Amino acid sequence: MTTIENVSPTNAGSMMQNPLLISSILDHAVRCHGDVEVVSRRCEGDIHRYTYADVAQRAKQLANALQAHGIAAGARVATLAWNGYRHLEIYYAVSGMGAITHTINPRLFPEQIAYIANHAEDEILFFDLTFLPLVEAVAPKLHNVKTYILLADKTHMPATTSLANLHCYEYFIAAHSANFAWPALDEDAPASLCYTSGTTGNPKGVLYTHRSTVLHTVGANAPDGFGLNSDSVVLPVVPMFHVNAWGIPYICPAYGCKLVFPGPALDGASLYQLFEQEAVTMSAGVPTVWLGLLNHVRSNNLRFSTFKETVIGGSACPPAMLREFEDVYGVTVIHAWGMTELSPLGTVCRLKRAQKLLSAEAQFAIKVKQGRSIFGVDMKIVGSDGAALAHDGKAFGDLHVRGSWVCARYYKETESALINGWFPTGDVATIDADGFMQITDRSKDVIKSGGEWISSIELENLAMAHPAVMEAAVIGVAHSKWDERPLVLVVLKPNTTLTSAELLQFYEGKIAKWWMPDDVVFVEKLPHTATGKLLKTQLRDEYRAHFLAK
Amino acid sequence: MTTIENVSPTNAGSMMQNPLLISSILDHAVRCHGDVEVVSRRCEGDIHRYTYADVAQRAKQLANALQAHGIAAGARVATLAWNGYRHLEIYYAVSGMGAITHTINPRLFPEQIAYIANHAEDEILFFDLTFLPLVEAVAPKLHNVKTYILLADKTHMPATTSLANLHCYEYFIAAHSANFAWPALDEDAPASLCYTSGTTGNPKGVLYTHRSTVLHTVGANAPDGFGLNSDSVVLPVVPMFHVNAWGIPYICPAYGCKLVFPGPALDGASLYQLFEQEAVTMSAGVPTVWLGLLNHVRSNNLRFSTFKETVIGGSACPPAMLREFEDVYGVTVIHAWGMTELSPLGTVCRLKRAQKLLSAEAQFAIKVKQGRSIFGVDMKIVGSDGAALAHDGKAFGDLHVRGSWVCARYYKETESALINGWFPTGDVATIDADGFMQITDRSKDVIKSGGEWISSIELENLAMAHPAVMEAAVIGVAHSKWDERPLVLVVLKPNTTLTSAELLQFYEGKIAKWWMPDDVVFVEKLPHTATGKLLKTQLRDEYRAHFLAK
Repeated sequence: MTTIENVSPTNAGSMMQNPLLISSILDHAVRCHGDVEVVSRRCEGDIHRYTYADVAQRAKQLANALQAHGIAAGARVATLAWNGYRHLEIYYAVSGMGAITHTINPRLFPEQIAYIANHAEDEILFFDLTFLPLVEAVAPKLHNVKTYILLADKTHMPATTSLANLHCYEYFIAAHSANFAWPALDEDAPASLCYTSGTTGNPKGVLYTHRSTVLHTVGANAPDGFGLNSDSVVLPVVPMFHVNAWGIPYICPAYGCKLVFPGPALDGASLYQLFEQEAVTMSAGVPTVWLGLLNHVRSNNLRFSTFKETVIGGSACPPAMLREFEDVYGVTVIHAWGMTELSPLGTVCRLKRAQKLLSAEAQFAIKVKQGRSIFGVDMKIVGSDGAALAHDGKAFGDLHVRGSWVCARYYKETESALINGWFPTGDVATIDADGFMQITDRSKDVIKSGGEWISSIELENLAMAHPAVMEAAVIGVAHSKWDERPLVLVVLKPNTTLTSAELLQFYEGKIAKWWMPDDVVFVEKLPHTATGKLLKTQLRDEYRAHFLAK
Repeated sequence: MTTIENVSPTNAGSMMQNPLLISSILDHAVRCHGDVEVVSRRCEGDIHRYTYADVAQRAKQLANALQAHGIAAGARVATLAWNGYRHLEIYYAVSGMGAITHTINPRLFPEQIAYIANHAEDEILFFDLTFLPLVEAVAPKLHNVKTYILLADKTHMPATTSLANLHCYEYFIAAHSANFAWPALDEDAPASLCYTSGTTGNPKGVLYTHRSTVLHTVGANAPDGFGLNSDSVVLPVVPMFHVNAWGIPYICPAYGCKLVFPGPALDGASLYQLFEQEAVTMSAGVPTVWLGLLNHVRSNNLRFSTFKETVIGGSACPPAMLREFEDVYGVTVIHAWGMTELSPLGTVCRLKRAQKLLSAEAQFAIKVKQGRSIFGVDMKIVGSDGAALAHDGKAFGDLHVRGSWVCARYYKETESALINGWFPTGDVATIDADGFMQITDRSKDVIKSGGEWISSIELENLAMAHPAVMEAAVIGVAHSKWDERPLVLVVLKPNTTLTSAELLQFYEGKIAKWWMPDDVVFVEKLPHTATGKLLKTQLRDEYRAHFLAK
C-alpha cells in the first residue's frame, strides 16, 4: 500500500491544528452554559450551589494559587475527596495549567495510599474534612508531599493537627486573581492519573492525557453512550476518585448538564432527598450503592419524580435489581462496562432499533449483557493461541480492546501493556453478531480443560440458583489428564442440606456434559477481598492438589 | 506559564496513540451494525437496499480496483453524483486507501466544474447516469482526468459516447477482491476535498483531513447536535456533493443509523413516498427543498407517520415553514448553521432546559436563531477594530470561529485564511448570553455609518413586511459625511402604489433613528445570483454615486 509519505506538500490538509485540551471544556461551558448550576452536598452538611461560570472563576484562582505555590507543569497534585464542587475546581485548575490531577481512593488501606502517593511523587494533597484523621495517619509515610490543603473554609479548620504544612482551601485561593490564561498545551500532555489495584502486586497508574480525556468525553457521551444533553440533571454516585467518575465531570460542562454532587452522603435517604430536590434525571454507579437507595424507596413507599435512567457498571447489575428499577420505578437501567485502563468507558448496553421489537424476555436477555462498544473503542476476543474468535455470542475468549482512550502502558513503566497493539483486559467474554459483549469470566479464573474453556462464573451462577446454596465458588484445579477440572465450593443456607450428588444432578441438562464439575466441597465460609469479591487465588492455593491427591 | 517542555519523560501519558481515521468508522459499522440497511433510490429508477457489511465489502473491492488502476495515496478522485450507495462506497474506498474524495457540485456552470477539476488535478471522475451529457460537454476541458467511470451496471452503459476512457462501475470493481487492509495513515492526512464558490473570484477548496472528519463526526452528532442513534432512520436531502452531506454519511455508520438516499428524485411526491416506505425519522436539508415536500403533503392532505425532526441549514428557515412543520405536522425543526470551511457544522439550535419553560412565542424567538455552538467550535464576534464584542444578543460584529474541524487555509494556498488564529466567516452576527448565535448580515453587506454598523438584512425584512412591497434590497452607499448610508431598492407588488415618504414612515419606531434609510428607489426588478440570492455587488456598483451626486 502507498503510504502517506507519497502525499505531495500541496496536499497537506487545510484544517486548523487545535489541540484537544481539558481547558476547552470549561471555556465552552462558560460561553454556552455559564448559568447552569453545580449543586453539592458538602462535608459540612449543607447544600452549596453555584454555576459553571463560578467554577471557571475559582478554578483560575486556584491555578494562580498553585503556580504561586511553585506547582509546575507535570507536577502531580493529589486529592482524597468526595464528589463536590471544590474537587471539580481542582480537576480543571490542575489539568488546565498543565499539572496532573491524581485522585486517590480513600477506601484503600493506608499502606496502599502511601505507596501510591510516593510512587506518583505527589507534591501537594487536597483532602476533605472527612479524611483528616486518615491524612494525619498517612502523612509521616509520604515522601514528597510538602503541602496539605483542607477543602473547607476557615471555620472548619482543626484547632490542632499533626500535619506540618496545612492550608485552608478557601484561604489558599482567596487572595488570587481569577485572570488566568489556560496555556496552549500539547494535546498529548498528561492531565490526570488514576491507580488501579489488581488482586496481586502493587497498584499501577494510568496517566490520562488531554487528548484521551477529550476524546473519551465526546465518545462516551454519544447519543447511544451516556447521551447527556442540556435537559439532563446528573448525579454521579460513582466517585471522582474512581476513574474520574466515569468522565461525568468532563461530560456535564461540555454538554450543559446540571451537575449534582452527593458529597459523602451515599445512604438511600440522602440520595433520594437530593434526587427529588434537584430534579435529577440520570445517575451512574456500581450496583451496591443502588441497594441502599432501592431499600429506602421501597420501605418508605416512595416514587421517583424525575429520575429516568441509571447507568450501572463496575460489576454486573443483579437481574432482580434491574427488574425492580424498570418494572416498579420506571427507571431504565443501562449496563455499561469499562475499566481504569479505558478512561473508563468501553461498552454501553442500549438496545438497537430491531431489538426493541423483541419480546420483553428477549430484550431482558440482551440488557444483562455488558453492551456494545461505543464508537472509538475496538474489541475482539481471542483464544489461547491468540487468534480472533467468532462474534457469535457463543465463542468466548480473552477480551482485547484498543482505541484513543485505552492505556498502552502503565505509569513509569517502560514495557508496553499491549499484545500486538491490543490491550488485554483480563476479562473473558463473548461478543454477539450485534456487537454486544458479555463478560463470562476473569482470564485468571477461567477453567482450561483439555484445550477448551469453562466459565467459572456460569457454574457459580447455576449453583447459586439451587435453593439450598447461599454462596458458591468454582475454581479450576490441576488434573493429570485434562490440565484443569472444575471444583465447586459451596456454603449452604442455614438449616438446609445438600449432597454433592444432588448438586451435580442439579447441573444436568443445564450445561455441556464436559463442563460438569468433578467434585463439590461444602465449606463454612468463602474468603473475600476488601471490596467483597471472591478471593479465588486463595482457594486455588488451598485446593491445588485436590484432584491430584485423589 | 510553564510549558509542556518542562514535563519529565516519566510523565509521558500512558495512552494509545491511535490515529483518527475514516476507515475506523466503516470498521465499527461492520462490527456493531453490520446488518443495518442502506436504502437508495437509484438513477435507474428502482430502489436498492443492502447493509453496512455490504458497503464495506464493495468499498474494499473498489479500493483494490483503484489501486490496480494506479490511483495512489494523495490522488484526487472526483465525483459528480447524487446521494446513493455507490457514492458512499467511493467516500470510504478513496479516503480509506489514503486518496482524496473530491465531490463536485453538478449544479455549477460547466466552466466552474472544469476550473475546479483542473485546479484539484482530479485523475479520475465517477459520475451518475444523469450527468453523462454534462460530463461529455466538460471532458474536453479537463486536463488531468484520465478515466471516467459511470456509476451503473453494464445494461445502463451508453451505446456511444464522446468520452475516451469510459468504464462501467460494476464491471470496474467486479473482478477485485473484497480483502483490503485499510492502511494506518497519519490522522492529519487529507481525506476529502470540497470547493466553495463565493460571489467573487474563483472557487476555493477546503481539504478535510481524517482527523477533522472524525472529530466532526463525533462532535456534530452530540446529543444536542444531530443526536442520531441506532433508533434513527436518516434521509439526507442535503447532497453528498455539498460539504459531504453535512457529515451524515460518516455519522450514520458510526452510530448505527439506517441510511436512506433519495438519489435524484427530490420532488415532494418522491420524497414523501420514501419517508413513509422506509420509516424515516430524521432528515436534513436547505429550506427550498422542504417547500416542495410541504406543498405535496398539504395539497394531498397527508401526514407523516415516523418523521420527527428536520435539521434546516444553508439559509435561515422562513418562520412560516417552521410553524407549519411543527404546528401542523408535528415535525420539530432544528435550525443549524455551518459552512464548507467548517466541515460544515458550527451551531445547532436546540433549546436548553430553562428555555423550554418559556412561552411558545419566546421559544419561537429562540428557534429562529442559528443556534449555539457545538462542543469543539469556539465562536466570537468582533467589531471593526478586531476587539471582541459582548455576548448580549444585541451587539453585532464579524463572526469568527475556531476548532479542530475549521479551515485554516484554502487548498493550494500558502497564505493563512485566519485572523489571529480565528477563521473569519464573512457573516455578521449577534451572540446572546446563552451562546445562541444569530446571523444579521454578510460582512460585505453590512452598512458602516459613522463608525457604527447597520444591518442590511433587518432593513430588508422590515421593508418586505409592508403590504405593497414584493422584494427589497438594502445596500450601503458611499456618503461624504457618514462613510456609508443605507439605500432601499424596492420592487412593488402588481397594482400597488407606495411613496418613499410612506415607506420611510413605515420604518418609524421600528428602528434606531440613525438606521433610517436616506433614500428609497423603486425598480422593476432586482438582480439575483444563479442560486437565487440578491446580487448586491451589482447594486452597489450601480448606485455607487447615489448620495455623492446629490
